[in-house]
Amino acid sequence: MLEHAYAVILAGGYGERFWPASTMARPKQLLSLLGDRTMLEMAVDRLEGLIPAERVLVLTSADLVDATVACSPDLLAGNVIGEPVRRDTAAAVALAGAVVKARDPEGVFCIVTADHVMGDLDLYRQTLREGLELAATSDVLVTIGITPTAPSTAFGYVEATEPVETSGDIAFRRVTRFVEKPNLETAQAYVDSGDFSWNSGMFAWSVRSLQTAFRAHTPPLADLIDALAPSVDTPAFASELARLFEPLEKISIDYALMEKADNIVMAEGRFKWDDVGSWPEVADHLPTDDVGNSVSGSVEVIDAANNIVVSADGHLTALIGVDDLIVVHTEGATLVCPKDKAQDVKRMVTLLRESGNWDSVL
Amino acid sequence: MLEHAYAVILAGGYGERFWPASTMARPKQLLSLLGDRTMLEMAVDRLEGLIPAERVLVLTSADLVDATVACSPDLLAGNVIGEPVRRDTAAAVALAGAVVKARDPEGVFCIVTADHVMGDLDLYRQTLREGLELAATSDVLVTIGITPTAPSTAFGYVEATEPVETSGDIAFRRVTRFVEKPNLETAQAYVDSGDFSWNSGMFAWSVRSLQTAFRAHTPPLADLIDALAPSVDTPAFASELARLFEPLEKISIDYALMEKADNIVMAEGRFKWDDVGSWPEVADHLPTDDVGNSVSGSVEVIDAANNIVVSADGHLTALIGVDDLIVVHTEGATLVCPKDKAQDVKRMVTLLRESGNWDSVL
Repeated sequence: MLEHAYAVILAGGYGERFWPASTMARPKQLLSLLGDRTMLEMAVDRLEGLIPAERVLVLTSADLVDATVACSPDLLAGNVIGEPVRRDTAAAVALAGAVVKARDPEGVFCIVTADHVMGDLDLYRQTLREGLELAATSDVLVTIGITPTAPSTAFGYVEATEPVETSGDIAFRRVTRFVEKPNLETAQAYVDSGDFSWNSGMFAWSVRSLQTAFRAHTPPLADLIDALAPSVDTPAFASELARLFEPLEKISIDYALMEKADNIVMAEGRFKWDDVGSWPEVADHLPTDDVGNSVSGSVEVIDAANNIVVSADGHLTALIGVDDLIVVHTEGATLVCPKDKAQDVKRMVTLLRESGNWDSVL
Repeated sequence: MLEHAYAVILAGGYGERFWPASTMARPKQLLSLLGDRTMLEMAVDRLEGLIPAERVLVLTSADLVDATVACSPDLLAGNVIGEPVRRDTAAAVALAGAVVKARDPEGVFCIVTADHVMGDLDLYRQTLREGLELAATSDVLVTIGITPTAPSTAFGYVEATEPVETSGDIAFRRVTRFVEKPNLETAQAYVDSGDFSWNSGMFAWSVRSLQTAFRAHTPPLADLIDALAPSVDTPAFASELARLFEPLEKISIDYALMEKADNIVMAEGRFKWDDVGSWPEVADHLPTDDVGNSVSGSVEVIDAANNIVVSADGHLTALIGVDDLIVVHTEGATLVCPKDKAQDVKRMVTLLRESGNWDSVL
């Protein structure tokens, strides 16, 4: 395995679009949406053989640390770090940088997510490995771009053309720019050009290069690494983290760094990679009956097709004469929503939060 | 109050169209579909001031006797009679006749249902009172016909033209014939003629006239009354009932008697009377929001209109972007069905019964 290499799994979101299955106490990454294992367990499993368990870190919300540790026997309790407040991905990356720096000043680390389903895992690990190797041996920030299979408007894109020579098998190219989620026409042009990849949210860098880049573009995050590192793995860590983290700006790593730095190299990610952002994406991974209903749990249908039905805890969900619906039952709540309104589930969560009456199911 | 007068509430059905709210253990008449009180309680309440509690009988399935007694403090346990097997309404009427005959050979009784919602209750009671009085003083079978408010195809009709003189305020007319549920064109012709009323399933007759009519048209039911009456209110009743009831034909009182007898008189029922046969009829009696959602329990909606949502036991049911659905949540099961498929709920119950896996929610 790679010396000095760490992996940091970002698992801080709540996945509101998976309500009522996802809740504050059991967010998306702790759900078994795709089968027997949680999204987080699968993210941990994917690193096996690449990064040893003692160097796999998970960043999550402070209130989810216990549930996260309990989720996988392969996670070390001391490697699950709770963010005292939510400060988006740039602050999370800096926090991870402080921990890695404290443990190994020569450290390199990759950022991976628990939000996606992946295939071709040998290729996934090889891509990470060569990204980490490149990050360890040159002052670049590595991003993993997914070779597009469709003109998706759900992802940001990375433009990268000029090849970067390495001794490995993965293709690397110098990044020209990061772009936001495009409209369909623009997305099609991106895909047709062959110069654009999907922004996967996965990265690799040395602590040293990361801190240099933060110093140039987002100095408070470089400061955070310096200020926090001395307390890592000491009893003072939690209070230091709370004191230093709260004042940070809420900003994504894309805005804070990737759109500004000029030493970014993209690794071509040619492994299978699917966003699992809302219920319709989950349906692709559930058993499907002969009229297109994707079901999990106890479900009976009459004259109903192409529905997604998730019925937890032995509860029976029965559909008659409805098509293209999402129906999700949990102990506390039931959702009924057309597939093409799957994004509005987040609106429902907001409505319920604002009502103040439904904390028990949020 | 009327001497010799009994009321018999027929409460033997299961109301499959109200699944999952209705179950074998808690059928429609024991549900509070329309508010705080069960359909059966409302049926009992409607008789107050007309028939004393000791002369109000309820006929139900043997397995529902305990739940039925528990349903209303106004019901006497000895007056709730369990049918050992289901033999449709003709046999139930004969069973009631045996009980009334045993307690009062001069008895008259009305048959009322727990399946409907009614208004103008003073008029309802007056109609029953005058029907019972007429039944007590002449050898006629009284049926209560509801003056139609629309050309419904959901009810059978009673044709009645020639007036019958009485000393009361309710109009009575001699019945020409009973007809089955018509198509819309025929129903419209019936309503336009002014000679047709809805068959309400409510009747009044003396035991003597009933038994005479059974003797002429359905002799086994006349025999049942004679054979069963001696055991009523004795320890032998249950075994005698079991022995005598099982061999009876399954046939409705309309087929067995009303379509054959020629001494039928109809009381004009001009009180409010609504069938509550499936979820859409319930919706008319639930609170409705400003976009037409009829809701019971904890419900939140976004961009959803004209739905019927019943969410039991504090469970939250959330609808996004759906219209004209029935969504019913109970502890064991959830139903999603378009309003215009409400009749198919019975098909679902049949499917679940046949599967053999869902007895716990049926």
